[in-house]
Amino acid sequence: MRYTSPIDPDFEGRVRASFERQGLITTLNGKIAFIGPGELHIEAPFDDRFTQQDGFLHAGIVTTLMDSACGYAAYTLMPADSRVLSVEFKVNFLNPARGERFRAEGRVVKSGRTISVCEGKLFAFQNGQGSLVAMMQATMICIRKD
Amino acid sequence: MRYTSPIDPDFEGRVRASFERQGLITTLNGKIAFIGPGELHIEAPFDDRFTQQDGFLHAGIVTTLMDSACGYAAYTLMPADSRVLSVEFKVNFLNPARGERFRAEGRVVKSGRTISVCEGKLFAFQNGQGSLVAMMQATMICIRKD
Amino acid sequence: MRYTSPIDPDFEGRVRASFERQGLITTLNGKIAFIGPGELHIEAPFDDRFTQQDGFLHAGIVTTLMDSACGYAAYTLMPADSRVLSVEFKVNFLNPARGERFRAEGRVVKSGRTISVCEGKLFAFQNGQGSLVAMMQATMICIRKD
Amino acid sequence: MRYTSPIDPDFEGRVRASFERQGLITTLNGKIAFIGPGELHIEAPFDDRFTQQDGFLHAGIVTTLMDSACGYAAYTLMPADSRVLSVEFKVNFLNPARGERFRAEGRVVKSGRTISVCEGKLFAFQNGQGSLVAMMQATMICIRKD
Repeated sequence: MRYTSPIDPDFEGRVRASFERQGLITTLNGKIAFIGPGELHIEAPFDDRFTQQDGFLHAGIVTTLMDSACGYAAYTLMPADSRVLSVEFKVNFLNPARGERFRAEGRVVKSGRTISVCEGKLFAFQNGQGSLVAMMQATMICIRKD
Repeated sequence: MRYTSPIDPDFEGRVRASFERQGLITTLNGKIAFIGPGELHIEAPFDDRFTQQDGFLHAGIVTTLMDSACGYAAYTLMPADSRVLSVEFKVNFLNPARGERFRAEGRVVKSGRTISVCEGKLFAFQNGQGSLVAMMQATMICIRKD
Repeated sequence: MRYTSPIDPDFEGRVRASFERQGLITTLNGKIAFIGPGELHIEAPFDDRFTQQDGFLHAGIVTTLMDSACGYAAYTLMPADSRVLSVEFKVNFLNPARGERFRAEGRVVKSGRTISVCEGKLFAFQNGQGSLVAMMQATMICIRKD
Repeated sequence: MRYTSPIDPDFEGRVRASFERQGLITTLNGKIAFIGPGELHIEAPFDDRFTQQDGFLHAGIVTTLMDSACGYAAYTLMPADSRVLSVEFKVNFLNPARGERFRAEGRVVKSGRTISVCEGKLFAFQNGQGSLVAMMQATMICIRKD
C-alpha cells in the first residue's frame, strides 16, 4: 500500500458523519459503497433532475461525485480533530455519462500534513456494462482546529 | 474585443433553447443573467439541497454553474448546426460559497474552429456584498453535425 | 489493453523522428526509454542548468518531460499524416525532484479521433531508489494535414 | 487593489535573491521585467535550444516562465522567513509560441496564510506585435521555517 495506517482509528465513523451532513449528496441519493484508508467510493443512481442538454448526467454532477469521493478519501487519513476542503481539482471528460447508476472512486496518491493529492474516476453502468466517464486530479487541504 | 462577431446571428435563441434543456439548471433554478458574443452569466439562489458539510454551496454546484456559463459562452460563437461539450476544466476554490445568491460568469479567451478556451468566475452575494468564490479555466469542443 | 492497435504500423519511426526534432529534449539529453502503442517513457539525467532555487530539477522541466512523454504516447496512436499538439495539462507536485536521473512515463487513457487524454508520471532515482515526483493529466490534439 | 500591503517591506530583495538562484532561469536568460506586491513579470529571448518539434518555444518552457512568474508573484506577499513551492498548475495553450522574445506575467488572485492562487499569462512578441500564447491557473504554498 502507498500510505501508512490512518492516524485516527475511528476514521470511518468520522467520515460517514461528515458525509451525511452534505445536503447535496442526500439530494443525489449518493451512498458510500467502499471506505478504507486512503480510498472511498460513492454510488448514485441516474436522476433526470441532474442532466445536461442531451439527457446525460451533467458534468457538474459527475464532478460533484468525484470531488466528494476524493475529499473523503483524503479525510480518512486526516486527524480526528480536523476538517477537509477542496483546494482545486481538474477533470477530463472521456465518455458521455450515460447509465442507470454511477460510481465515483477517490484514491489518495500523496497524503501530507497539510496537502493531500488524490485521483478520482467516475464509472457509468448500463445493462451491467461499465464505462469510464471522467477522471479527476485533486488537491485537498486539512484544516486543523486550534 | 477579443473575438470576431458570432457566426450565427441567432446565437441567443439557440443558446437559450439548449440551456433550458439542462435538467440540472432547472433543478438549481438557474437563469441566464447576461448573454453576449463570447460571454454568458448565470444566476442561481442558495438552496440547502445543494450544500456541503458546512452548509455552504457544494464545490460541485459551484463548478456546475461555472461549467454551464463557460460552455454556453463558447456556444454563442459556434455555428448554428453544432453542439458544445466540455473537454475538461480546472477549478480553484478561493472562499467559502456562502451567500443568498450566486453568479457564474463565463468568458471565451480563445475561440477556435474545434477548441475554445474559457475562463469562469463564481461570485457569492450576501447582504449586497459580493465575493469571489472560485475560478475556472476550461476547454470546450464544438461538435459539428455531418 | 485499453486501446486498439495503432492505425499507423510504423508509428515508432514517426514518433522517434519527431522526438529528435525537439531542440529542448536534445538540450535536456532526454532519451526514449520505452515506446509502445499508447505509452512512452523518457529518461533524462540531472543537470544543474535546469534547477530551481533549492537545487532540484525545476517544476518546468519536470513538466516538460511529462508533456513530451504524454504527447508522444498519444502520437503513437495517431495516423501517419498528422501532428500532435498539447491542448492543456495539469500537474501536481508531490515530492522534490531530487535525483541523479529522472523518468517520465506517459500513457493514453482515451484516444479519440481528435482529442486524446493522457496521464503522466515523473519518477526521480537516487542511489537506486525511485520516488514519484509529479503527476500530469493532459489533453492532446491530433492535427490532420489536408 | 486586490491584496493588502506585503508583510515583508523588503520583499523585492528577497524575491530577486531567490530568482537568481534558479539555475534554469539563468540558462533561459530570463530577467525580472516588473515586480510589485502580488505581481511579477519575466522576460526571456527566443533560443533554439528550447524548442519543440516545429521550432517554436516548447510548452514546457512556456510553462516554466509562467510558473516562475506566478511563484514569485506569490512570494512577494509571503513573510521574510519563508519559502515558496508550486503545489500544482494548469496550463492552456492558445497559440504557437512563435516570437523573438516572451513575457510571462504572474498575478496573485488570492493570498492566504498557507495557500496562494495565481494566474499567469505568456505573451510572444514578433515584429513588435504581441500575442497571447498560454494561460495558467496555479496554486502556491508558503513553507515557513520553524
